[in-house]
Amino acid sequence: MKNKMRLLTPGPTPLPEEVRLTLAEDMIHHRKAEFTACMGRVQAGLRELFGTEEPVLPLSCSGTGAMTAAVYNLFAPGERVIVVEGGKFGQRWSEIARSRGLQVRSIIVDWGEPVRPEDILQELQADPTVTGVLVQASETSTGVLHPIREIAVLTRQRNVMLVVDGISAVGISPCPMDAWGVDCLLTGSQKGLMLPPGLALISLSRRAWDRVDAVDPKDFYFNLRTERVRSEVDQTLFTSPVNLIRGLEVCLKLFRDQGMEAVFRRQWALTCMVRAGVRALGLELLVDERFTWGLTAIRLPDGVDGISLLRYCEREYGVLFAGGQDHLKGRVIRFGHMGYVDWGDVLAGLYALRQSLMVEGGYSASRDYLEQAMAGYEAGLQQHISMS
Amino acid sequence: MKNKMRLLTPGPTPLPEEVRLTLAEDMIHHRKAEFTACMGRVQAGLRELFGTEEPVLPLSCSGTGAMTAAVYNLFAPGERVIVVEGGKFGQRWSEIARSRGLQVRSIIVDWGEPVRPEDILQELQADPTVTGVLVQASETSTGVLHPIREIAVLTRQRNVMLVVDGISAVGISPCPMDAWGVDCLLTGSQKGLMLPPGLALISLSRRAWDRVDAVDPKDFYFNLRTERVRSEVDQTLFTSPVNLIRGLEVCLKLFRDQGMEAVFRRQWALTCMVRAGVRALGLELLVDERFTWGLTAIRLPDGVDGISLLRYCEREYGVLFAGGQDHLKGRVIRFGHMGYVDWGDVLAGLYALRQSLMVEGGYSASRDYLEQAMAGYEAGLQQHISMS
Repeated sequence: MKNKMRLLTPGPTPLPEEVRLTLAEDMIHHRKAEFTACMGRVQAGLRELFGTEEPVLPLSCSGTGAMTAAVYNLFAPGERVIVVEGGKFGQRWSEIARSRGLQVRSIIVDWGEPVRPEDILQELQADPTVTGVLVQASETSTGVLHPIREIAVLTRQRNVMLVVDGISAVGISPCPMDAWGVDCLLTGSQKGLMLPPGLALISLSRRAWDRVDAVDPKDFYFNLRTERVRSEVDQTLFTSPVNLIRGLEVCLKLFRDQGMEAVFRRQWALTCMVRAGVRALGLELLVDERFTWGLTAIRLPDGVDGISLLRYCEREYGVLFAGGQDHLKGRVIRFGHMGYVDWGDVLAGLYALRQSLMVEGGYSASRDYLEQAMAGYEAGLQQHISMS
Repeated sequence: MKNKMRLLTPGPTPLPEEVRLTLAEDMIHHRKAEFTACMGRVQAGLRELFGTEEPVLPLSCSGTGAMTAAVYNLFAPGERVIVVEGGKFGQRWSEIARSRGLQVRSIIVDWGEPVRPEDILQELQADPTVTGVLVQASETSTGVLHPIREIAVLTRQRNVMLVVDGISAVGISPCPMDAWGVDCLLTGSQKGLMLPPGLALISLSRRAWDRVDAVDPKDFYFNLRTERVRSEVDQTLFTSPVNLIRGLEVCLKLFRDQGMEAVFRRQWALTCMVRAGVRALGLELLVDERFTWGLTAIRLPDGVDGISLLRYCEREYGVLFAGGQDHLKGRVIRFGHMGYVDWGDVLAGLYALRQSLMVEGGYSASRDYLEQAMAGYEAGLQQHISMS
């Protein structure tokens, strides 16, 4: 046993033991009282997690399924939407929107930059027929946080739906739907929620529900109106992903025991920790520090082969990072520190990163980078997180 | 500890311990070699299970998601299809087909009857523009096996796709795709495959793939062409339901260790066992014995309240049956004996059924019904199952 495996990717993330033991429980029936009671408890926790008084609907699909559900239920073919394209998942919004027959106005943002609210305002003013803005809370391909709160100020004044992919944000950084005025927030199970993939969650604002009624969508599987009716009796429309929902109950209990402010603060402190370590190693961040939380993309020095570096970290240290995607492939690594990851895991990750850099030619002389990282963590833990 | 819980419903079914322990394993990354290797092994086992040389695609959704995927990928709006409606899931085919804009010719069959192939022939001859027949291998609301093999003789001679919902059949009773000429077979994870719900599987015949190319479907999430491309490198299009697929590998290994003939024979013997016990109790089967396998719907004597009976079985004996649906609610119970259920569980189920009948007013004097059931089981085990 040379190494424990450490999953430091932006999902799937490691699973807490309590969750794993629950996943191993024998089946219960999804139409019986024991499961219904579980769904009721989960629903209360999910509303708190999403910061909304509207129902949060569980769907049996990946996060992309929930993105598809959002677009297919909120917009009719021919409608115009603004998409923030600053990475692979922004591009996915455009693909889904086009598959529904929407007219897409893309705001192309450099990978690693957040969108500027004034650019969204300009697009909204340029085309007053736009009915939606589709954006990531955290763009998983770069780790950028887009300014959801500022965008919501623009959309809530207008008859424009703000649809937010929170797959790498929910349970990691705050995105309170009702307080900010988000019209649709969705996530997947395998990131902040510390579960295996296969469960998605979606919630709509009251005015978004009115839109669904107006659009009258016909998609059979992703039918949010009927899901909402079923959720009123703590059921799902089709067969529920039973053991993931029972695992979700455990996760929500872990959150409640700590309080969400503490959950976000811990994720923030890990973010500060990675940055401090990376700075001490003399490496460059892909994204300005003001705009990341839970995921840190790191530029590799010229001449260092990112693919080879990832392999070395995995083989020699059991540490799995994610690589860059598309034009960033081989040029960055994405150091995930979301979900069930702690400072000890991050220490191991930073050590693996430094050692592999020395082997791959990006030598760093720093001897106290781990201490600096820990100081970053401790400082992050002292910061208060605004929850509204 | 008065009772162990026994899930004798037509899904979800109990989980083998090997599967449960695998579900509890910590996460691995779905884009890394360990998972890809698992997918490769799973693919080989799935092709054997489905009896096809074409790929079997895993989807992150419930079984209904795979039904939706089949209809949305194989047919264009306006096309005409025949739907066999002999229960709740036949009706679901019609609903999905209509949501896609298809023209549905329904063959309404009494609940509890299999469709007659000559009725399908008549519909095919009445409308030569029909491009598909949608049917259940086993209609879960009644337990009827429709005669897939005979229907395939009709469709394979024509340019008509035979689309089979095998959700309550795959891993329970034979439905070899290539040998019979089925164009699309799909299933869910929570029945014969002895897994939690949340994973669906679908396979298309070669000529069905040609149709997909002709139809050129645009659905974003259920995109079988791109799934197929991804499956060639042992990946899925979107995030894989990692722990369900690892559990599936365990299930397929259990199948391989026994051989599929033995798996089907065991499910058959349990079917014979329940029938023998039910006959000995003087009860009536909903469905002619020639047309069930894995699920037995039992008519309740007049005056017996089925809902109250189900509650009694659960409360006093820890046995969960399913009730009747729609107009059969309260009038039948559905005794599921699929997946990880053995003769001992069925004995417990029959005992609970008899005791509750005595309480609910459907008194049965039989003292040797359990012995008769065991004799039925032993006789069933001696029968050879045709695999083609």
